Amino acid sequence: MEAHDREAFRQAVVNTLERRLFYIPSFKIYRGVAGLYDYGPPGCAVKSNVLAFWRQHFVLEENMLEVDCPCVTPEIVLKASGHVDKFTDLMVKDEKTGNCYRADHLLKDFCREKLEREPNLSEEKRAEFRHVLAVLDDLSAEELGAKLKGYGIVSPDTKNPLSDPYPFNLMFQTSIGPSGNLPGYMRPETAQGIFVNFKDLYYYNGSKLPFAAAQIGQAFRNEISPRQGLLRVREFTLAEIEHFVDPDNKAHPKFSEVANLEFLMFPREDQVSGRSASRIPIGEAVAQGIVNNETLGYFIGRVYLFLTYLGIDRDRLRFRQHLANEMAHYAADCWDAEIECSYGWIECVGIADRSAYDLRAHTDKSGVPLVAHEKLPEPIEVEKLVITPVKKELGLAFKGNQRMVVEALEAMGEKEALELKATLESKGEAEFTVCTLDRVVTIKSNMVTISKEKKKEHQKVFTPSVIEPSFGIGRIIYCLYEHSFYTRPSRDGDEQLNVFRFPPLVAPIKCTVFPLVQNTEYEEVAKCIVKSLTAAGISYKIDITGTSIGKRYARTDELGVPFAITVDSTSSVTVRERDSKQQIRISVDEVASVIKEIIDGLGTWADALWKYPTHSS
Amino acid sequence: MEAHDREAFRQAVVNTLERRLFYIPSFKIYRGVAGLYDYGPPGCAVKSNVLAFWRQHFVLEENMLEVDCPCVTPEIVLKASGHVDKFTDLMVKDEKTGNCYRADHLLKDFCREKLEREPNLSEEKRAEFRHVLAVLDDLSAEELGAKLKGYGIVSPDTKNPLSDPYPFNLMFQTSIGPSGNLPGYMRPETAQGIFVNFKDLYYYNGSKLPFAAAQIGQAFRNEISPRQGLLRVREFTLAEIEHFVDPDNKAHPKFSEVANLEFLMFPREDQVSGRSASRIPIGEAVAQGIVNNETLGYFIGRVYLFLTYLGIDRDRLRFRQHLANEMAHYAADCWDAEIECSYGWIECVGIADRSAYDLRAHTDKSGVPLVAHEKLPEPIEVEKLVITPVKKELGLAFKGNQRMVVEALEAMGEKEALELKATLESKGEAEFTVCTLDRVVTIKSNMVTISKEKKKEHQKVFTPSVIEPSFGIGRIIYCLYEHSFYTRPSRDGDEQLNVFRFPPLVAPIKCTVFPLVQNTEYEEVAKCIVKSLTAAGISYKIDITGTSIGKRYARTDELGVPFAITVDSTSSVTVRERDSKQQIRISVDEVASVIKEIIDGLGTWADALWKYPTHSS
Repeated sequence: MEAHDREAFRQAVVNTLERRLFYIPSFKIYRGVAGLYDYGPPGCAVKSNVLAFWRQHFVLEENMLEVDCPCVTPEIVLKASGHVDKFTDLMVKDEKTGNCYRADHLLKDFCREKLEREPNLSEEKRAEFRHVLAVLDDLSAEELGAKLKGYGIVSPDTKNPLSDPYPFNLMFQTSIGPSGNLPGYMRPETAQGIFVNFKDLYYYNGSKLPFAAAQIGQAFRNEISPRQGLLRVREFTLAEIEHFVDPDNKAHPKFSEVANLEFLMFPREDQVSGRSASRIPIGEAVAQGIVNNETLGYFIGRVYLFLTYLGIDRDRLRFRQHLANEMAHYAADCWDAEIECSYGWIECVGIADRSAYDLRAHTDKSGVPLVAHEKLPEPIEVEKLVITPVKKELGLAFKGNQRMVVEALEAMGEKEALELKATLESKGEAEFTVCTLDRVVTIKSNMVTISKEKKKEHQKVFTPSVIEPSFGIGRIIYCLYEHSFYTRPSRDGDEQLNVFRFPPLVAPIKCTVFPLVQNTEYEEVAKCIVKSLTAAGISYKIDITGTSIGKRYARTDELGVPFAITVDSTSSVTVRERDSKQQIRISVDEVASVIKEIIDGLGTWADALWKYPTHSS
Repeated sequence: MEAHDREAFRQAVVNTLERRLFYIPSFKIYRGVAGLYDYGPPGCAVKSNVLAFWRQHFVLEENMLEVDCPCVTPEIVLKASGHVDKFTDLMVKDEKTGNCYRADHLLKDFCREKLEREPNLSEEKRAEFRHVLAVLDDLSAEELGAKLKGYGIVSPDTKNPLSDPYPFNLMFQTSIGPSGNLPGYMRPETAQGIFVNFKDLYYYNGSKLPFAAAQIGQAFRNEISPRQGLLRVREFTLAEIEHFVDPDNKAHPKFSEVANLEFLMFPREDQVSGRSASRIPIGEAVAQGIVNNETLGYFIGRVYLFLTYLGIDRDRLRFRQHLANEMAHYAADCWDAEIECSYGWIECVGIADRSAYDLRAHTDKSGVPLVAHEKLPEPIEVEKLVITPVKKELGLAFKGNQRMVVEALEAMGEKEALELKATLESKGEAEFTVCTLDRVVTIKSNMVTISKEKKKEHQKVFTPSVIEPSFGIGRIIYCLYEHSFYTRPSRDGDEQLNVFRFPPLVAPIKCTVFPLVQNTEYEEVAKCIVKSLTAAGISYKIDITGTSIGKRYARTDELGVPFAITVDSTSSVTVRERDSKQQIRISVDEVASVIKEIIDGLGTWADALWKYPTHSS
């Protein structure tokens, strides 16, 4: 599609979405806040359907350990993960108004505009701008600043001069507790909550690898100037999986179940050499070493199935491998599921082999070893730190808070424990912070013993690798809206009607109930059907207005409702399928169960068409 | 139970919960943060079961409009709702260490300790302390300060002197966007997101009352010093319903469906006169005017059903009416669903008739009328503000941002629009803030016309009342844990085993699969059963260790798994029910579907007992 058509198509989709409350700019009556959106009733239902299916397809299917951690996160956790120091974008400020802009966006817009709007540009200049666009993500603050100055780029809204670029941290900052001494952030991803719990989760799994943990929840990024509507927002729902595996064995027992799947892959080499994405069976991609290992390949296959079941068009979905300069130094391999929409190819799921990086970072910072064990053929001797809280003394001193103090003592890292030991030996007591109490307490030397002891080890100890599929739920849903949207002429051809072709799995409302004309008899039948739909757990919408059936169909096609039940007699009803507009007649008693079978995937519309008489209107 | 027994019971429950990862103190490897907890795998599953049932029982049953709004909220919204000014607790600081305490907690602890520990206290003094405890919530900062000074209360941890009490706002504060000019907070409740969307939701509902909107999401309260473990936390999940209704007609069409329900009610008069809670049919309570109206009564009945279906003990659940001094001045009536646990009677659901307060507050602050309409018998004449953006001029000036500017202009309140009109008339242009763009733009006089016009009104306009059931999901789940927990002796009587008697609806894992002995044949059968369970959407746990069956049962009883499938032949298996320990034999092919029927509530264990041969071990 041409840029202009893409824009027009997007406007049609977005207008429908906003008019039918799939989403609402948040706090609209106060004129909204950039980058914050509400899910209105149909959007909220789509989202909860997508999440329920995610749980079924990933968590239940693989018996993953799902957890649910807070959004408020103390600084130390995000210091360890690198977010406090590195989770930044380069920003410039309008020197007069103070308006803020992303430096790379201004440079990108400038180069694109030159290339698009100035046909007489020399070939040399064209090559230069193309080169800038290609290396944009790699530029340092200084390099970016030099380019902006060199091209004379000014504030787009006022033409005022701009400041030099400087890093702006994208986390929302806050303060935990009343003292003001404990800085915190709203988490920028859910993954850290899983990493810090690795030790407990590993134990819960019977101390066996591999296993996966999962989390669905809100994440926050204080974007400098959000653009691209629903795709770049300041608060969003992530669904993340952390699959922990022995670095020496990344085979996957169920890989054969996906190996024959064939879909668009876009390996690094093909990108660099200017080839386009091509269909490769995932089994072959792993065998040829294009995808690093079976576990990564297995998840790529499962993500493909997940997205296409939802209704993403398989021809506008590709798996793109990160280029060397995109990938973190520690990552073994990384693939993005990209979906094509009116904004171009959008990263919706990242599937990365992050090796041992995250668990090592938290081990270093916390002093708690986040490791796995494997039996050794021969035991070996090692020196170990032993912390033994004296519960009787602690109980006398701290009463109801004893447990928190004991836990805090036991959780000390080696360095800290040895410092405490030294202080207790020299002064007889020491100040000790108990975070779970928000307090500093005094520990006396009779309350804890700390020592180093020689022990025999029977196990090899290692840090597992983690393979992380991370899903941007809002982006997937937005692309799904675009892929599901189409228009068709109304019966008398005088207007174009909007339709979302959601599969029943995704549809926000599964069916509608329309009494054909306003009379008590039909309304009673409708109420009766509605009761059986509710009992079967099927969401419905009832419309008892006297509006024409055609108009009522059009209204709900626009919400993507797959089935409409029209009550046109007291014994049987007409059921109409949204996309084909085919109609069949089913008895009042049966209709809820027939629809439930299709919704639950136990039957299809084709089955129903075969079984029940068709109806021509 | 005596205080000591209550404490011991709680320790037994909490130890089991923590050991089996129902919950985990958040960021434990960094020693945690007071008032923040993770849901570990079984806790997370319980929570998602409770929320799925909440959606079925409330949202689907009443066809509510569910929405999903961000946690990050700009200050103006919470200024309008009163949270910025009034959502505070009184705090005192240790003058040396800076430790912070809730002033009322210190006074409460002091009075309780006096009453409990000093048997020789004079009757006069006893009466005084009891009085202080009774009026604690009503004391001003000055009164609280005077009492603390008067009793010589000092810092509990250090015995240092304390500061005077002063208000501390309980919201987590942050800043939205990079400029630092837009203060924001993490929402303290989800309700405000619904109120600000009233206009759109009312329209979505066909401009008809009554209707309800609902929201499930995270809320945040920066507690001064969290106590009571899982009951008072800094981040928690709320599920809130806002039912909008004509203030002149609060009847409910489905009230008759709950009218005969009978449960513990604790009306205001009974509390004041020292009587205890008593069983009153909710129909009678409404008829007698004890409960203000049918809609409030309907929700009380539905909440009762919800909680008891989950497994809350009906004898430890009561509905307590707010006393006059507890209730906001605008509220028409307010009842709390309180559940008794080891901490006493805990408010878990609040059900309040908040009259028109919230919608009026946002109407006043935003200038956008949040009102409902009803046809008038005779039209009347009124003067109305009309804002007409000139899209052509705005398009030329703002290109892709045109729509945001148009929306911002149209959203202006009357006062602001008239000011803009005056500026445009005197200066020809004006500065104008477009929040969705995070920018100040220049509006010229040819870009918008603003005028007042006389119009005929055909409708009566009024602010709806709102009835709000608000559920603290974490508190309900904690009470459910206590009500579901029991111990029983092991087979040889040498130890007490823990059991959670969760109903199948709530159970985190629905069944286990145990091959009786380790052999390939049984493991193949187990795999086959596991496949059919996964296909049926039933969560399971498989344990192929050689541990004794008794131990494997005990491990999963502690997770509240209702059914265990033991593979002890290749054709049929033994199914054991958790609480009765009864066993029946079912064929391998049938077992998944029999269990699914019970889980889905389509059959019961009693049915299965009748249908299949019992097994004696």
